Amino acid sequence: MRTSDEYLEDLRRMRQNIYMGGRPVQRDDSRIMPGVNVMKITFDMAQDPANSGLFTETSQYTGKKINRFCNVCDSVDDLLKKQKMIRTGTRLSGFCIQRCMGTDTINMLSVVTRDLDDATGKTEYYPRFLEFIKSYQERDLIAAAVQTDAKGDRGKRPHEQVDPDLHVRVVSQNRDGIVVRGAKEDITMASYCDELIVFPTRTLTRNEKQWAVAFAVPSDTENVHIINRASSPRERKILKAPLNTYGSSDALVVFDDTFVPWDRVFMCGEHEFGGRMALTFASSHRHSYCGCKPAVEDIIMGLIALTAEYYGVEGKHHIREKLAHLAGIAELIYAAGIAAAVESTRSASGTQVPASIYANVGRRLAGENTYNCWGMVADVAGGFPVTMPFEEDYFDPVTGPFISKYTVRNPDVSVEKMHRLQRTLSDYLSSSWAGVWQVGDVHGGGSPVMESIAILSTYDFEERKKVVKRLAGIQD
Amino acid sequence: MRTSDEYLEDLRRMRQNIYMGGRPVQRDDSRIMPGVNVMKITFDMAQDPANSGLFTETSQYTGKKINRFCNVCDSVDDLLKKQKMIRTGTRLSGFCIQRCMGTDTINMLSVVTRDLDDATGKTEYYPRFLEFIKSYQERDLIAAAVQTDAKGDRGKRPHEQVDPDLHVRVVSQNRDGIVVRGAKEDITMASYCDELIVFPTRTLTRNEKQWAVAFAVPSDTENVHIINRASSPRERKILKAPLNTYGSSDALVVFDDTFVPWDRVFMCGEHEFGGRMALTFASSHRHSYCGCKPAVEDIIMGLIALTAEYYGVEGKHHIREKLAHLAGIAELIYAAGIAAAVESTRSASGTQVPASIYANVGRRLAGENTYNCWGMVADVAGGFPVTMPFEEDYFDPVTGPFISKYTVRNPDVSVEKMHRLQRTLSDYLSSSWAGVWQVGDVHGGGSPVMESIAILSTYDFEERKKVVKRLAGIQD
Amino acid sequence: MRTSDEYLEDLRRMRQNIYMGGRPVQRDDSRIMPGVNVMKITFDMAQDPANSGLFTETSQYTGKKINRFCNVCDSVDDLLKKQKMIRTGTRLSGFCIQRCMGTDTINMLSVVTRDLDDATGKTEYYPRFLEFIKSYQERDLIAAAVQTDAKGDRGKRPHEQVDPDLHVRVVSQNRDGIVVRGAKEDITMASYCDELIVFPTRTLTRNEKQWAVAFAVPSDTENVHIINRASSPRERKILKAPLNTYGSSDALVVFDDTFVPWDRVFMCGEHEFGGRMALTFASSHRHSYCGCKPAVEDIIMGLIALTAEYYGVEGKHHIREKLAHLAGIAELIYAAGIAAAVESTRSASGTQVPASIYANVGRRLAGENTYNCWGMVADVAGGFPVTMPFEEDYFDPVTGPFISKYTVRNPDVSVEKMHRLQRTLSDYLSSSWAGVWQVGDVHGGGSPVMESIAILSTYDFEERKKVVKRLAGIQD
Amino acid sequence: MRTSDEYLEDLRRMRQNIYMGGRPVQRDDSRIMPGVNVMKITFDMAQDPANSGLFTETSQYTGKKINRFCNVCDSVDDLLKKQKMIRTGTRLSGFCIQRCMGTDTINMLSVVTRDLDDATGKTEYYPRFLEFIKSYQERDLIAAAVQTDAKGDRGKRPHEQVDPDLHVRVVSQNRDGIVVRGAKEDITMASYCDELIVFPTRTLTRNEKQWAVAFAVPSDTENVHIINRASSPRERKILKAPLNTYGSSDALVVFDDTFVPWDRVFMCGEHEFGGRMALTFASSHRHSYCGCKPAVEDIIMGLIALTAEYYGVEGKHHIREKLAHLAGIAELIYAAGIAAAVESTRSASGTQVPASIYANVGRRLAGENTYNCWGMVADVAGGFPVTMPFEEDYFDPVTGPFISKYTVRNPDVSVEKMHRLQRTLSDYLSSSWAGVWQVGDVHGGGSPVMESIAILSTYDFEERKKVVKRLAGIQD
Repeated sequence: MRTSDEYLEDLRRMRQNIYMGGRPVQRDDSRIMPGVNVMKITFDMAQDPANSGLFTETSQYTGKKINRFCNVCDSVDDLLKKQKMIRTGTRLSGFCIQRCMGTDTINMLSVVTRDLDDATGKTEYYPRFLEFIKSYQERDLIAAAVQTDAKGDRGKRPHEQVDPDLHVRVVSQNRDGIVVRGAKEDITMASYCDELIVFPTRTLTRNEKQWAVAFAVPSDTENVHIINRASSPRERKILKAPLNTYGSSDALVVFDDTFVPWDRVFMCGEHEFGGRMALTFASSHRHSYCGCKPAVEDIIMGLIALTAEYYGVEGKHHIREKLAHLAGIAELIYAAGIAAAVESTRSASGTQVPASIYANVGRRLAGENTYNCWGMVADVAGGFPVTMPFEEDYFDPVTGPFISKYTVRNPDVSVEKMHRLQRTLSDYLSSSWAGVWQVGDVHGGGSPVMESIAILSTYDFEERKKVVKRLAGIQD
Repeated sequence: MRTSDEYLEDLRRMRQNIYMGGRPVQRDDSRIMPGVNVMKITFDMAQDPANSGLFTETSQYTGKKINRFCNVCDSVDDLLKKQKMIRTGTRLSGFCIQRCMGTDTINMLSVVTRDLDDATGKTEYYPRFLEFIKSYQERDLIAAAVQTDAKGDRGKRPHEQVDPDLHVRVVSQNRDGIVVRGAKEDITMASYCDELIVFPTRTLTRNEKQWAVAFAVPSDTENVHIINRASSPRERKILKAPLNTYGSSDALVVFDDTFVPWDRVFMCGEHEFGGRMALTFASSHRHSYCGCKPAVEDIIMGLIALTAEYYGVEGKHHIREKLAHLAGIAELIYAAGIAAAVESTRSASGTQVPASIYANVGRRLAGENTYNCWGMVADVAGGFPVTMPFEEDYFDPVTGPFISKYTVRNPDVSVEKMHRLQRTLSDYLSSSWAGVWQVGDVHGGGSPVMESIAILSTYDFEERKKVVKRLAGIQD
Repeated sequence: MRTSDEYLEDLRRMRQNIYMGGRPVQRDDSRIMPGVNVMKITFDMAQDPANSGLFTETSQYTGKKINRFCNVCDSVDDLLKKQKMIRTGTRLSGFCIQRCMGTDTINMLSVVTRDLDDATGKTEYYPRFLEFIKSYQERDLIAAAVQTDAKGDRGKRPHEQVDPDLHVRVVSQNRDGIVVRGAKEDITMASYCDELIVFPTRTLTRNEKQWAVAFAVPSDTENVHIINRASSPRERKILKAPLNTYGSSDALVVFDDTFVPWDRVFMCGEHEFGGRMALTFASSHRHSYCGCKPAVEDIIMGLIALTAEYYGVEGKHHIREKLAHLAGIAELIYAAGIAAAVESTRSASGTQVPASIYANVGRRLAGENTYNCWGMVADVAGGFPVTMPFEEDYFDPVTGPFISKYTVRNPDVSVEKMHRLQRTLSDYLSSSWAGVWQVGDVHGGGSPVMESIAILSTYDFEERKKVVKRLAGIQD
Repeated sequence: MRTSDEYLEDLRRMRQNIYMGGRPVQRDDSRIMPGVNVMKITFDMAQDPANSGLFTETSQYTGKKINRFCNVCDSVDDLLKKQKMIRTGTRLSGFCIQRCMGTDTINMLSVVTRDLDDATGKTEYYPRFLEFIKSYQERDLIAAAVQTDAKGDRGKRPHEQVDPDLHVRVVSQNRDGIVVRGAKEDITMASYCDELIVFPTRTLTRNEKQWAVAFAVPSDTENVHIINRASSPRERKILKAPLNTYGSSDALVVFDDTFVPWDRVFMCGEHEFGGRMALTFASSHRHSYCGCKPAVEDIIMGLIALTAEYYGVEGKHHIREKLAHLAGIAELIYAAGIAAAVESTRSASGTQVPASIYANVGRRLAGENTYNCWGMVADVAGGFPVTMPFEEDYFDPVTGPFISKYTVRNPDVSVEKMHRLQRTLSDYLSSSWAGVWQVGDVHGGGSPVMESIAILSTYDFEERKKVVKRLAGIQD
């Protein structure tokens, strides 16, 4: 397994193809480092013997100890542990541990490449995937899930768009590989991952074979351009804190006639499997959300409980009701993840696929409650965290003493502790970074409306009509 | 295992101590029979080989095949199967399969009598329970959970009430047994069960030893009076249907200096275990609710989907949204039950106790959504099911033809089918029986506010404060 | 103005054309009388000098004092008083004062018959209406709003149905009048009103002239058949109470080639005005809902506050929160009615039309919250009101003393008062009557989805886009 | 009336007592100017003849034309127009027009100073107020409402705090005036208003006379220190837009033994009127919220409708449902304001006081829905507005063409328009400024829990118990 320092060295060695604010930048740019710091948590936790078995696993391919983020789940227990690891990691990073993007992508590839080979009887995507995954685990890599196409007009299919490049597609192919063109949006981690794993965003028809493409390329590959947007909590000058070292980046990733060799192509033209890839990834990733969203609720509960303590309103019933409600949201989502694991099914390749219905109802509950839950934090925090003086004013000889005098609430809580809590509240309630993640909690992994569609397409309502017909004495 | 006919015969042999509408009645009174008919489902399903392994189990005490409703769960799988059986049974009976009351009571006794003996080192409640349960399983009995005391002033403890009998208590004891006095409210199945198993409704203090009592008596025991209230869907004269044969009874059960022999006493004076019994039953019973409430949602979804089909509005988005939402409610509750099983713990007696937090968040979600979900049925049903002419008018030579002519919606759906569906909607939306069960879904097993209290008392909010302190850099 | 006794005498003189349970019945049938009793409130209140100016008004046509239920509103103040009268009346009758149906119908006719005449330049519907209304006011009549057609397939228009009679239509006409055929559903008060005023349920196209018909007939007119369904709270044998004397009836009203003379025809073939009638009535009636639904919330708040007092939990925060929330629902609905009056517009006939947007947002809020609000009552009431023994058991020498002993909560509240409150809770939570009215509160006057459609069709979203375009610097 | 230029000149002439980021700054500091720009709207609108009668009024004191923000309401119509003006102004400024703070403060002073004089029979606060208001109107001033004290321990009263200065208080007084000490938090506009009008934050007891103080001072008065925090949408380098010129400031305002002459003191020691001032201001300000919050909903609806149009999903039912729901929220709040005006009462000084219950239910509805409504914008906006490249990247020769190519959705919408819309969405969803205002919409004018307290303290629940008692036949 890599150390976090080795990971950083690897990043620094990469070709410069990241753009921000109108100019090319290095991968260790100060605006990108907060995201890198989140990745480091995933390496550090795996190195720590205390987390052995939670952040690490034994590879079924090589028998070696690997980082669990590189693991392909082949048991119910694997799924339960993935979920638990993600909850643990997210509580450390403050919002999103990110690296599960790659985990869910490799799990999806393990399922669909094998099914695809079984269906065609002649392709060799699964053997390629096996080679790829062994190296991926050995080198302890990070992959971004490169799925969301630019998409153009939402009411039209890929082949109906004014510009065929609005979905990533194969523009040519030869004996050595394929050439792809297009762009993918909202790609988290693109600027600090090792690999970009690309796959379709939707179902495809027989007219759309050129868009049925999946592949992996190193993120600094020739003719890949990463237009990055970074966000992180406000930087602190004096009052340093772990939260303020973390952050994330999302990017528009442009494939400008990028060449991909065949051994890294996992689908090329088999349109029937476009939708399968999209849906299999969705189930897997929504199951991961059943791990991270409870962690976000944990942080929300911690913020509310600590604020109530520092403000001296701990026993107030509206605080207790909020906490009881939030515990319910957190554990219902987590329970959905457990149920998705318990009711999971085994694919032909031996990979365990979480039950779609539970992954979907859990993730949807999270998405529907995001804004409401942050509203509860706002309610308890009061106005001061968003109107509090700037950091420097707290330490200024003229204004500092006034602030110290007048921000006392519970006299047993030091001015610094109160300051730290309120500034953290400020980061969570009124920073650009928080806004990014609030929206991310609605849309990441599929917005609530997407989960409803998934539920409607798989749930057996006919069977429930029969239950009612029997009770009502209706005979068909 | 008993057959349903044997059960009915047993009922008919019992002493007459049921009162309704100002007079004593037999246990096969026509108003009580709908409840008896629900019990019959539980016997019939166990006899049916198709349900082998779901409605039956092998006793860990005797090695014999028993009805699962008589089973004491000693594995995760037992808990998962109990939950599934309850969902299956509830879908058959139309609202509540009821018999799990006894199941959860015997599971509670298995846990607490053993812990109690271990704590005192001298009592013999657990051996008594073992004798009791063997006979209970062998005879395939039904027990009511006799818990909710009259309680008097809600702001006062048992020993502070103006009348000490407002909670059931021991008024005397001798070498042979104890004499108890008091009354229990809202006792479902009291008028058609075999056994009344009595235990405390709340925590008790050292001043309250006389109220720390648990015991079992046959329901027709001397000095037990059962003042019964029955409810069921409207009786049909012509348009017979299974739903209209089912129903339930609840009773005020009075213990008017009832004698209980020692071998049927499971607690007597050990006040510390009063609350344990109440809470252990609660967790077990709320886990059962994670089975039955999804079934009620199944029925609700079936009603909506079938109504939409018969009305010709199946594809309308508001129908689809309701269904997607309801599937979420159903499966989140069910997932909570699965998680309660997966995270269950083993008690000293080897009985598996569902995880309290998941049982509580699941049952609370059900209770909070009851009225809203029925509101959705009302929304889809439209006004006609509650203003439709009486049954006889449909078959009257003057009015019948008009009704047939004007109630056609989808011409492919026969008048009778539409009539059956709408009358069933009428039963679910505007009958006394439906009102009883709507209230029951709020309060049965503990109302949402009780689940919030249970959650607040066990959830680790301090640990979540620590998560936030680390992120904020707050050091204690 | 009529007295309530005169009204009853008038009913008794009517031709027998009501059917219930397979046989013809009189209008003073004991099952219909609860509805009649609600009507009597409206006469008695008008006779009472204490309500002068609230339940009475001076006619703009005759200058005489009339019952306000017979008034055509020609000022903002009239609309405000109508709303207030309805709130007052509904609090007396326990759920719905009903008679506003007629009020809103005559207001609609005053608006649309005049506009229709103005548009055609040759019809004389408005003069006919003026004659009709003078007599209506003079005789202090009650009219049912006979609007909702059988409708058949919800996905098809009137002229596309398999049976043209599924919407009421003109089958022939001659010099004396018209002959109509069809049926109307869910017609409240049909069995105890004086007049049936019939008008379309929807917009109509030029293919649908035969369905563009509005008229008034006495309710016992030849070839009118009223198939009635009555509901009321449970009858009491000993514990008499006002609530248990009230109730309502809804009917399927069949027009079996009914003749209507021209002077009672208010539209015949002018299809463009079908939708106008439907919408104008809807606005007026939804404004009335902004009066009655706050009254239902008043009753709900009273039930909760009194239950909390009798149970001794008055100060509990969950009680206070419910009350604070319900006061908000009540007054937001009422405020919407006030705003609908303040922003009302004057029609060509001088009749004041409530502002559609406010009438709709108010009524929709009521409809969306019906079930939830009753769920709050259930939450506070606890299980006993739906499992309490039957009335006779309270007065039986064997069971009565037990019930008296064990139903004590607050010792200062007599057994009878507790009994009365809980039985009233039982009526509101678990009687057929309550179920009818819960559904009625969702659908009466148009279900929430109908209000959303009305809002979407009139609200100016384009103007709001412009607000955003200016802020964003977008220039078209 | 002042022009906006004159206002800016006045600001520039003021003494430098503003602090930001550890140093003193001028009132036209670039971070403060966005707030100043909002104030300019209020002057410019009043100058514009098109708004005559909406943004202007005739003073009842001087008969002169004044800015309506300086008006003391003495009619229902005044209240209706204030509400409408605020809705209009807020739609222009993008979130909050702010200046109503002063409006509501002068209205409160007009009511309470007169009542106070009437009660004591010897004070002269009202004549002082009359002098003050004439000058205020004449000079067209802006006042901040300086109410929220530092407050210290939320569980203790002012006289119980460890530091008496935690609520602003009188430390000494003499023939010329009083000396005050303390600090006020969250004071919007403090750094760009003319006057600070100070009054209590809560009810006071007889032990708390020193905290019963109200007064007005120019904002640059000696010994007043304003520690400011400013926020505004992201500054744009190329893509200029009105929204990005607006913003706001909030401050900690420190009174460090500030001298106030008697003619500017409006309460000094009359503790019974401390709560009256707080509550009277609250009603007035919550009525203002019934004007501004509908405007925020207007903007939200505009954002959603325009996004749906540009994305090509205008007709989708989830869009339409959101719009229908939001129109309901907007107009229910607005209706509550209308009802508060219609049901307002006249104080002894002739000032019209909005009905508390309606002001409270309206403002609470707004506060409860803030986060949810923004969640709807997030849902429709999708992820791109928070991951979109920085502004410069759109105009960079390398990355710009890629962005232009791949951000096309509806080909008829230009890249610039889409860019402008998405960047505005980004400002509203993921900027520090938006977070500040989201929290402000929860707490400004009192958080929802404060409105519930106000409702519970004034609503007549006893009367509603009587309604139920009559129905149930309960006689006391």
